[in-house]
Amino acid sequence: MNEIKFEKRKTIEQVEESTELAPKFDQDGLIPVVTTDFSSGEVLMQGYMNEEALKKTITLGEAIYYSRSRKNLWHKGKTSGLVQKIKEIRIDDDQDSIWLRVDVQGGASCHVGYRSCFYRSVPFGDDNSNTVLKFEEKEKVFDPKKIYGDTPNPTKL
Amino acid sequence: MNEIKFEKRKTIEQVEESTELAPKFDQDGLIPVVTTDFSSGEVLMQGYMNEEALKKTITLGEAIYYSRSRKNLWHKGKTSGLVQKIKEIRIDDDQDSIWLRVDVQGGASCHVGYRSCFYRSVPFGDDNSNTVLKFEEKEKVFDPKKIYGDTPNPTKL
Repeated sequence: MNEIKFEKRKTIEQVEESTELAPKFDQDGLIPVVTTDFSSGEVLMQGYMNEEALKKTITLGEAIYYSRSRKNLWHKGKTSGLVQKIKEIRIDDDQDSIWLRVDVQGGASCHVGYRSCFYRSVPFGDDNSNTVLKFEEKEKVFDPKKIYGDTPNPTKL
Repeated sequence: MNEIKFEKRKTIEQVEESTELAPKFDQDGLIPVVTTDFSSGEVLMQGYMNEEALKKTITLGEAIYYSRSRKNLWHKGKTSGLVQKIKEIRIDDDQDSIWLRVDVQGGASCHVGYRSCFYRSVPFGDDNSNTVLKFEEKEKVFDPKKIYGDTPNPTKL
């Protein structure tokens, strides 16, 4: 297996209009990643990768993120079995954002037990005196207690 | 018009399982936003909002981001006419990421002239000796020079 190489960022034209992969990592060494379900198009989650996570994701064909709270690589689904098999990787115009299109084994992606992490909507428009979130998913796909047991909840206040 | 109020983040259960809007902004005061086309489901762009941008987006029903390079609010489409009309706003489990589903006037969203900012794919899998991006969109929807003129290109190296 050959080592993936990223190109140096030389010109705006190279970054935007060429076929060279020259991703930009931010001051913390991270690039944001949005992950959608290949079949439904639904956004499942938003995460981050560092250089190593992106290289391993490209090589393995499964999503590997960088966990900012745990400060390590995070092979999504290794605990829960909900591995994300990659169908397509896209990169944006200035190459500072990644879009993964994946198949999720088990059909659920969210640690709370829902299909998507984005299971609630925010009302909008003129009459926003009462901003009450609406549950767009009514039932959990799995019981997180059964899957994760006593693993600490990743949500931080 | 009433002022939008965000709740204080009190417990993990409140953040994940309740109907209270309690978004988390990072150390720079920002929350990442992924924007998809309401009809096609395609990811159009990934950006950021600060507290003011999120409140204005909810009130106006059009996407207002925070530009990290220009350090100000950015009412998407005000220059190009490619305004993003909001159809749905979603927030994720731990309320630190926003998903906007929008209709884009003019059908294009990317400053380079393509429909989506994610117009190139990254090959993946075992044989990655030759990482050459592939153009998934073949033709630009508009000519950026005609739309933006001499406005500085937002892409940073």
